Amino acid sequence: MKKLINKPEDVVKEELEGVALAYPSMVKVHFEPDFVYRADAPVQGKVALISGGGSGHEPMHGGFVGMGMLDAACPGQVFTSPTPDQMLESAKMVHGGAGVLYLVKNYTGDVMNFEMAADMARAEGIDVLNLLIDDDAAVKDSLYTAGRRGVGTTVLAEKICGAAAEKRYDLKKLADLCRKVNINGRSMGMALTSCTVPMAGKPTFDLPEDEMEIGIGIHGEPGRKRLKLKTADEITEMLALAIIEDPAYHRTVREWDAGKAEWVDVDLVDPPFKAGDQVLAFVNGMGGTPAIELAIIYRKLHEICEKKGLKIVRNLMGPYITSLEMQGCSITLLKMDDELIKLWDAPVKTPGLRWGI
Amino acid sequence: MKKLINKPEDVVKEELEGVALAYPSMVKVHFEPDFVYRADAPVQGKVALISGGGSGHEPMHGGFVGMGMLDAACPGQVFTSPTPDQMLESAKMVHGGAGVLYLVKNYTGDVMNFEMAADMARAEGIDVLNLLIDDDAAVKDSLYTAGRRGVGTTVLAEKICGAAAEKRYDLKKLADLCRKVNINGRSMGMALTSCTVPMAGKPTFDLPEDEMEIGIGIHGEPGRKRLKLKTADEITEMLALAIIEDPAYHRTVREWDAGKAEWVDVDLVDPPFKAGDQVLAFVNGMGGTPAIELAIIYRKLHEICEKKGLKIVRNLMGPYITSLEMQGCSITLLKMDDELIKLWDAPVKTPGLRWGI
Repeated sequence: MKKLINKPEDVVKEELEGVALAYPSMVKVHFEPDFVYRADAPVQGKVALISGGGSGHEPMHGGFVGMGMLDAACPGQVFTSPTPDQMLESAKMVHGGAGVLYLVKNYTGDVMNFEMAADMARAEGIDVLNLLIDDDAAVKDSLYTAGRRGVGTTVLAEKICGAAAEKRYDLKKLADLCRKVNINGRSMGMALTSCTVPMAGKPTFDLPEDEMEIGIGIHGEPGRKRLKLKTADEITEMLALAIIEDPAYHRTVREWDAGKAEWVDVDLVDPPFKAGDQVLAFVNGMGGTPAIELAIIYRKLHEICEKKGLKIVRNLMGPYITSLEMQGCSITLLKMDDELIKLWDAPVKTPGLRWGI
Repeated sequence: MKKLINKPEDVVKEELEGVALAYPSMVKVHFEPDFVYRADAPVQGKVALISGGGSGHEPMHGGFVGMGMLDAACPGQVFTSPTPDQMLESAKMVHGGAGVLYLVKNYTGDVMNFEMAADMARAEGIDVLNLLIDDDAAVKDSLYTAGRRGVGTTVLAEKICGAAAEKRYDLKKLADLCRKVNINGRSMGMALTSCTVPMAGKPTFDLPEDEMEIGIGIHGEPGRKRLKLKTADEITEMLALAIIEDPAYHRTVREWDAGKAEWVDVDLVDPPFKAGDQVLAFVNGMGGTPAIELAIIYRKLHEICEKKGLKIVRNLMGPYITSLEMQGCSITLLKMDDELIKLWDAPVKTPGLRWGI
């Protein structure tokens, strides 16, 4: 295992210490329980947006804490869900009297722990809603997931909902927005190589020198298929068409109903893409992928979108939701409208995304 | 060779096409000869700042073209110098009547070609000065270099001189500033793994599973030594102390003397760091290094600087000057003063660095 680390068990703690030292004007770090939070928290009168999940996907989530994005992020150990006490304590630290939105990627541990944390926070008088991101078009049900996994759209939801919170959307309106982003976003990833979880010390999976995995999850969960290596254009086409031609996706998720004061089942439908749609195109590196390769993927994605009548109105390219040093990429398309474009363009100042200020 | 590419010979062309499609508001791309240039070029009355070098180090240099940084960047094939016609044609395209500064990393091919281009541009009536970056404290003379190699300080010089050009520093004053950045910056890198040049199809060098190379160049040029793997803290200490304890470095470089209208030898001395200095600390990923590991490096670097009496007043962390998918990192320290801090903080809007606007 070749890594720039000290003891495997100290990776997350030491990474958080590094982040705290590097970005003191943007974030602070609380230890035991661990969470990253806005240096200027709590922001009074603003809904606090909190996310979290296993470490190893940096800059997500800790790198997206700051003005215009998250109020706090709760990192678990590498590829391991954070615990309810992290989520609860971060909510108590950053809530500004207008409620808390927990933005949760659809992995069973994360979903369960954020639900427990929400119940605990409400018991302490904090309004909380939990919103799910489940945008991975690759597979239904997976190693750690019932339904679709939450991947690239999470980054976009954190940016867009963060901007809306900054503009003082109330909790209900922010939840509606988050749901809109989720149902309009779809992703699919692929890997050329595995990653190695520090505590495991060996690759998560074996992938022969001439093979790749299409539809892989961000923890190395199995995808749709293993194939012989193909060209960047062929790979881009496989990912993009799987997203663009994905039919309507119906499912039921659990959300908190503040009126009824109980968890209720909500039916969601992700509408398929259609010619004429405006989209944000997000080409993501898995952590070990050089920038030069992402640009080659973007080039082909642009051509495919054009051919399909999708107009790319905004984009994002780089390693934003990663799997340690995995080589590979993912593509996310998010259907945009005027509201989403305006929120995307709003200023943001976090360690991982920064513009407009 | 596992890469997200099509034909190896098309990598640079297709990457440039991707960049042009992704960032039309910031940059345009000219083909044959190839260069990336500011979408709003030429900016009248501003010195045009142009750099370039082999591809494979992205986002440097093409990703640093835009407001507040470079006016143009000339990419060669992977790890291969660009040609004088690229440098000449880009100068003709972007110069705004106040001259051109060619910012050149110290590799023999780059130095020679930028000198030829400067002579050709002057023959066409454009004022040009060539300034060298040779900041790599690892070794003197190297595979492609007489003297020290140009590495991480290049990124900082492009940002700082770009901001100064924006503030309408004239050519002579900008050259003085660039020289100041160069002599006050020092770097050193290391690799855990090799990279693979697409056209070569196999790793540039072999590095056993339990070894690393300290002082490596950004093209895989040999460093100071190969060692058994060490911890992140030990590696950081090796790099940081090599930089901080590097004695004064004297050498002679060739620069154009506009008064004499000839190339002259200029003596430069890099003063050593001393307790009380303010520094910018730049922790750079080599392309295949996860963000989580860079933060662990930063944590230790901060501790070492503190112990040595160096105050980190600004920082940069991420993959900015890379070697394809190489795993490893480099550290750059740049002695800062009020002028440099102000220029560092000035707005920048490029594909690879963006803030303040």
